[in-house]
Amino acid sequence: MKQTRFRSAALRAAAALAPLALLAAAAPPPASPSPGQIVEEAPAAHWTAIAASDLLVMDLAPDAAGKPRRVVIQLMPAPFSTGWTENIRKLVAARWWDNTAIVRVQDNYVVQWGDPDAEDDAKARPLPGGIAQVPESGYVVGLEAFAAAEEEGVSSDDSAGAAMAAAEAAAEQASRADQPNPWAGPDTYAKTLDFFRGWPIAGNDDGVWPVHCYGMVGVGRNLSPDTGSGAELYTVIGHAPRHLDRNIAVVGRVVEGIEHLSSLPRGTGELGFYEKPEERTVIRSVELASRLPETERPRLEYLESDSESFVRYAVARANRKDAFFNIPAGGADICNIPVPVRKISQ
Amino acid sequence: MKQTRFRSAALRAAAALAPLALLAAAAPPPASPSPGQIVEEAPAAHWTAIAASDLLVMDLAPDAAGKPRRVVIQLMPAPFSTGWTENIRKLVAARWWDNTAIVRVQDNYVVQWGDPDAEDDAKARPLPGGIAQVPESGYVVGLEAFAAAEEEGVSSDDSAGAAMAAAEAAAEQASRADQPNPWAGPDTYAKTLDFFRGWPIAGNDDGVWPVHCYGMVGVGRNLSPDTGSGAELYTVIGHAPRHLDRNIAVVGRVVEGIEHLSSLPRGTGELGFYEKPEERTVIRSVELASRLPETERPRLEYLESDSESFVRYAVARANRKDAFFNIPAGGADICNIPVPVRKISQ
Repeated sequence: MKQTRFRSAALRAAAALAPLALLAAAAPPPASPSPGQIVEEAPAAHWTAIAASDLLVMDLAPDAAGKPRRVVIQLMPAPFSTGWTENIRKLVAARWWDNTAIVRVQDNYVVQWGDPDAEDDAKARPLPGGIAQVPESGYVVGLEAFAAAEEEGVSSDDSAGAAMAAAEAAAEQASRADQPNPWAGPDTYAKTLDFFRGWPIAGNDDGVWPVHCYGMVGVGRNLSPDTGSGAELYTVIGHAPRHLDRNIAVVGRVVEGIEHLSSLPRGTGELGFYEKPEERTVIRSVELASRLPETERPRLEYLESDSESFVRYAVARANRKDAFFNIPAGGADICNIPVPVRKISQ
Repeated sequence: MKQTRFRSAALRAAAALAPLALLAAAAPPPASPSPGQIVEEAPAAHWTAIAASDLLVMDLAPDAAGKPRRVVIQLMPAPFSTGWTENIRKLVAARWWDNTAIVRVQDNYVVQWGDPDAEDDAKARPLPGGIAQVPESGYVVGLEAFAAAEEEGVSSDDSAGAAMAAAEAAAEQASRADQPNPWAGPDTYAKTLDFFRGWPIAGNDDGVWPVHCYGMVGVGRNLSPDTGSGAELYTVIGHAPRHLDRNIAVVGRVVEGIEHLSSLPRGTGELGFYEKPEERTVIRSVELASRLPETERPRLEYLESDSESFVRYAVARANRKDAFFNIPAGGADICNIPVPVRKISQ
């Protein structure tokens, strides 16, 4: 498991028998930098701050020891799932989630939250005005719309940004020349795979869609053709359920505090729903970071997926050559290349 | 998220506006059986009991509410990882794990357990006699050795078994004729994928190896060429870390009680190690089920991966056509086809 802090008793025993040979073998070989080292050494220009207006701050009731539990969710950028993210912005503006709850924890699948009384017409909390019913076509972005979105942000008036983008494109190309794109597949679920502004996406001849990796946030719904409003959300806490891609809207990802969700007790009811109200964890509030006082806002940045550092990181994840590994995989599935996100240091 | 128990408020609102149209849309279409239904309806002959001598019963200290926490691990069958599973049998016979602890919980990665004092030469608990140092070549089984292992258990003197195997092979072939093998890939990490007696395996021209899916148990180790003794173990609690395949020995899988591991608080030290001894969960005992009194043994069975039911289950996982899904994926990565394991009903 990477380098453990443990020296196993067997290794110690062997060292006692043959100390010289063992010491030689244990001396670190001239190893390539690990993915973590590449991320640590990435220049500041390769990191992009996440706008406070794209961050949901979800405060759960404190844990049994009284410790606060804050979960921060980054909303999916346009052109993906915009019908639902607009609904979510309306729900949070209305403080609709305050005093809702975590209602379901299914092992190796999802943690889900929303109105615990949603089933009960008499008690269900009404949605605020303006919540749209988004059509199923919203799960996939057409290729033309996606190409247009990709053009945005490299406009000619942003000369610094354009210069950086050009430099990075060159670096990326060089990096890829001696190393095939590590996340290109092959893949069971899509024809093409890529990253868009720090988000894993998949595509085929019809369009492009976000990928259900660990930590992604999606919209709970009823049977098709219902697509969910965005008032009931879940996050993935297990192996990527890629069969949900194009069947449910992905609207964001947990960028801080996922351990407050993934370590919750599993529900014992059907599909991991909690059977008793007292098993639920109360959500005290969900607020947009940009509406919090400046000092209380989470300040986070992600490693730009178009940057040279990200490509090097991905290549290293696909071809581990640090001292722990014997056999580099030669590739990495896209959910095994999590986009690095970290606190912005002052 | 499959069929949620919730009717969303938006759906209710729409129903109020257009009840007839909505009711028609909500009526379940003639859906194919879900993977869960196929498993439920599988005939008894498609299930295989797990031998008590292959089950480790790990009892953790009770939780804060005093509830017992039992984790059951099935050992990997030969010809895979036999050097390590033999070590593990010796360790459990010596009751080596009693009063060891869970020392590490890293989100979306692993839960790890062993001797918390392993680093401290003065306090580390000595291994029992006969623990072998297994060479790295043990990570992969050669194609000839694997073919020989596959022949075992379909011997001609077991006529009932042979007849069943033949019937199942025919059924499987028929099932595959109109549906390509759903777990065949394409795959980033291996040339071929299959199941062997209920275990996901991968292969290439050199050999065959077990796959690091959710819940698999592996052997913690130091830097290569150390391969670990088997005294320090981990289980996967996140997206399948397939880059560990062929780099660490997979020796088993958690078949019951994984929620007692996956929901533990995450460690705040490097790599998710607990920083304070009091954060660790004590392992009261690890014993082989066959050495427990008969009434206390876990009695489990798995859906035989060569059975027609398993193939139908896998096809259904790859091509969800139940009422929830719009777009079947057309395939499933092998870790998205977990082998069904259940209690044997009396």
